[in-house]
Amino acid sequence: MKDKFWKTGISKVEPNKILIRGYNLSHLIGKCSFGDIVYLLFSGELPSENEGRMIEAILVAGCDHSLAAPSANSVRFVSSSGVPLQASVAAGIISLGDLHGGAIEQCAKMLQENLKRKKKSNIQILAKNIVAECRKNKKRVVGYGHPYHSEDPRTKKLIELATRFKIAGPHLLLAKAIEDELRTQIRKALPLNVDGAIAAIISDIGLDWRLGKGFYIIARSSGLIAHAYEQIVREKPFKAVALDKINYDGPKERPLRES
Amino acid sequence: MKDKFWKTGISKVEPNKILIRGYNLSHLIGKCSFGDIVYLLFSGELPSENEGRMIEAILVAGCDHSLAAPSANSVRFVSSSGVPLQASVAAGIISLGDLHGGAIEQCAKMLQENLKRKKKSNIQILAKNIVAECRKNKKRVVGYGHPYHSEDPRTKKLIELATRFKIAGPHLLLAKAIEDELRTQIRKALPLNVDGAIAAIISDIGLDWRLGKGFYIIARSSGLIAHAYEQIVREKPFKAVALDKINYDGPKERPLRES
Amino acid sequence: MKDKFWKTGISKVEPNKILIRGYNLSHLIGKCSFGDIVYLLFSGELPSENEGRMIEAILVAGCDHSLAAPSANSVRFVSSSGVPLQASVAAGIISLGDLHGGAIEQCAKMLQENLKRKKKSNIQILAKNIVAECRKNKKRVVGYGHPYHSEDPRTKKLIELATRFKIAGPHLLLAKAIEDELRTQIRKALPLNVDGAIAAIISDIGLDWRLGKGFYIIARSSGLIAHAYEQIVREKPFKAVALDKINYDGPKERPLRES
Amino acid sequence: MKDKFWKTGISKVEPNKILIRGYNLSHLIGKCSFGDIVYLLFSGELPSENEGRMIEAILVAGCDHSLAAPSANSVRFVSSSGVPLQASVAAGIISLGDLHGGAIEQCAKMLQENLKRKKKSNIQILAKNIVAECRKNKKRVVGYGHPYHSEDPRTKKLIELATRFKIAGPHLLLAKAIEDELRTQIRKALPLNVDGAIAAIISDIGLDWRLGKGFYIIARSSGLIAHAYEQIVREKPFKAVALDKINYDGPKERPLRES
Repeated sequence: MKDKFWKTGISKVEPNKILIRGYNLSHLIGKCSFGDIVYLLFSGELPSENEGRMIEAILVAGCDHSLAAPSANSVRFVSSSGVPLQASVAAGIISLGDLHGGAIEQCAKMLQENLKRKKKSNIQILAKNIVAECRKNKKRVVGYGHPYHSEDPRTKKLIELATRFKIAGPHLLLAKAIEDELRTQIRKALPLNVDGAIAAIISDIGLDWRLGKGFYIIARSSGLIAHAYEQIVREKPFKAVALDKINYDGPKERPLRES
Repeated sequence: MKDKFWKTGISKVEPNKILIRGYNLSHLIGKCSFGDIVYLLFSGELPSENEGRMIEAILVAGCDHSLAAPSANSVRFVSSSGVPLQASVAAGIISLGDLHGGAIEQCAKMLQENLKRKKKSNIQILAKNIVAECRKNKKRVVGYGHPYHSEDPRTKKLIELATRFKIAGPHLLLAKAIEDELRTQIRKALPLNVDGAIAAIISDIGLDWRLGKGFYIIARSSGLIAHAYEQIVREKPFKAVALDKINYDGPKERPLRES
Repeated sequence: MKDKFWKTGISKVEPNKILIRGYNLSHLIGKCSFGDIVYLLFSGELPSENEGRMIEAILVAGCDHSLAAPSANSVRFVSSSGVPLQASVAAGIISLGDLHGGAIEQCAKMLQENLKRKKKSNIQILAKNIVAECRKNKKRVVGYGHPYHSEDPRTKKLIELATRFKIAGPHLLLAKAIEDELRTQIRKALPLNVDGAIAAIISDIGLDWRLGKGFYIIARSSGLIAHAYEQIVREKPFKAVALDKINYDGPKERPLRES
Repeated sequence: MKDKFWKTGISKVEPNKILIRGYNLSHLIGKCSFGDIVYLLFSGELPSENEGRMIEAILVAGCDHSLAAPSANSVRFVSSSGVPLQASVAAGIISLGDLHGGAIEQCAKMLQENLKRKKKSNIQILAKNIVAECRKNKKRVVGYGHPYHSEDPRTKKLIELATRFKIAGPHLLLAKAIEDELRTQIRKALPLNVDGAIAAIISDIGLDWRLGKGFYIIARSSGLIAHAYEQIVREKPFKAVALDKINYDGPKERPLRES
């Protein structure tokens, strides 16, 4: 064991055989959906049929949000600079940070930790306390509200499917209860957004919140590849901002002191 | 039009509505597989049912190859350094270069360009000429041979599915004919590898070779996320190589000349 | 102003003229050291002669740490995969995270915030309280201790120069006082490491702790480029770990349940 | 030797000692400029005093070009998304591709290969043939012309210094001769740009063209850090493009066919 460089429980490569979490990859191909495999890689076990479908739906929901997302802008600029496809897509993936998809992770953490600590609590009381505490600490409740969508079409659909697939459980209940509490306490509509919905659903199918951003990375990489490709085949190289669109507010020109 | 910053045909965001290539995203969720959406984003149109299944199978086939791939190693080191999930995954995606998945792109280019230029050629003659020309120029035929798999289990399965789905066409025929020619001309088995099989299949379903790496980026990001996560939750931070595993062959210690 | 896309006080580009923080770039070239320019870009003003020299010394100190750093390992794997130089270096820079150079940022924050809040405090009392609080919260004091260097040669030299250049001030005093306190309270030598020394010195020359990692990014990029280049010109492509060096501890091979 | 994982001639780490290309790092700190160290890391040897100064001047020249460069735009978007400093800077460095600084590499390659192959040729004839061949193949001569600067202030200054430092040699002569030839053959001013000037100068001090982009990576990382920092401390989070600035030219909304 001492001379091993890595330890992993994910996969094993042998000559002419690849195991993924113990399953022969060549048996998985054609039999499982990609959503099944994502669940298998993330959790160690294959999902139920409905869980696999749910993951596919989540991946579809997160596929693209046009240039209204920092990541797509980043990819476009980088792609225009003459770099290979994967490198420009990577520049977009880096930007899936705390403020861009990161709410999946943070919201799932909040839901999971609250439900774990207070197993027997009434969901409504839990929601009330979560909102009250956020307000006391002047923190936003992550996973709620959206700059463009007062009613996010992706959220609605994902919740509909989670219900139809009999996946919806306590995390989604808590997420919805928080939405109600926000309306009550803040008197403003801050609807559960797509990040929050994904956070609740992956929690209900038993996945660790630390994997939350993973769904977004996979889903959005499909759109980012399309943006990188479109930039290369259809647009002019070396995208930059015209000089007159840059508002320079630094010091006026000044002489260099002699020394 | 002049005051627009970007032009894109991929998607449109309006308040409470998202269009992907003209389709309402909320109609696609739950109805289409993620493979369908990848095809839609890449080509502009929805695939046939079998084409969508084929893409899903390709994504499953490329999901992971353990630490036998540079990308997973890169992710592990970066992930051990205290960075967010998406940033460590990005470091792995950057490494999907010419020598690591890049064969999909190059092999698809070769197949597409040869079949386009010489539409009426006999496939066998085409294959013969391709191999002969590579040998003359002392270049490898990309998409053939694998360091570990003399018979790549993924290749076999993907070709089986392409046949069953009635997707297999001239590109896959040409790819197989080149395999035969390699055996004849080089007298060595250099079987079509998984990159080559994907290259042929995406060409047969009408996708541009420049999108070749895209399939690999999406597929492998699932495995890379699992590696980043496993490194964080199970392994010690700050992975590095022990000092005695580094063979320093630079100059012996030498004094700095006085100046 | 409304039609401007960006606002910046860093630099201004006009036809045939580039201003950096108000100075004509063509006057800076050949007159200022790169260390001077780093200070100018980071703070908005040119440094004193000694401050500029100090920055150069910091950049030299951080230039490389061989394969004993995750970043260099990451670069090597990525560089072996057939990607452009800048892309492989980027994969190394991503790994300069919280646990790999991040101590500069965190230690500078600690020093700056403590000295700001408690301006009139005695440095020794401040140090005592900082160490006691970290111990109470079971947190490491960042910037102290090193896996390989019980006496970091870079730390010693940088402090020597800061003293000679008359730059050493309250932050370095506090950093040294914490080192003494650690010895007293923990009865173990946890010497100020190179991250901690840089943190203290950039604080003494008035730079915001949030720029701390910046010095490391610039400095180390020089070494990472050398590693990427060496990998390309001297080593074999597609670096990976031999199959027998990977300890797979996942599930044994198992059959796929029929569905 | 068999059990070593890496081989490197760059640096060696021992307890309390770090060697860079054989020199004790603690002797280099304070004695050498960062430019000296870049040369040492890149070439294996310390430069002459003037060569070290020249490198510093090159690093200063490349420090920033405001938002007129794709890299700075990429950094700004990523930095606005809530990611650590080094990750947003990495997204900018990725974009230093073939079309953004890549001319240093390509131009240095052209100069070095031509002078190596045709050692005894007359520089003017060499320049004539290079331009003629590019024209014949309808290729741009890389390293000439700039979208904003008809007379690049950085080029002029760098050549002035190379001359003053007695570094200017055959590569710079050839670069200037090509500039003359372009004027003669194309009857248009396509002046040597800053990439071309750096390419010629690093070639004259004996550095491999494959290291060309390295200078740009180090130099520009200083400006990119300033942009990332400014975005964080002064601008609003989640930078994106307003919906009405995106010109969607994809398919009109269309119904999903029933299946």
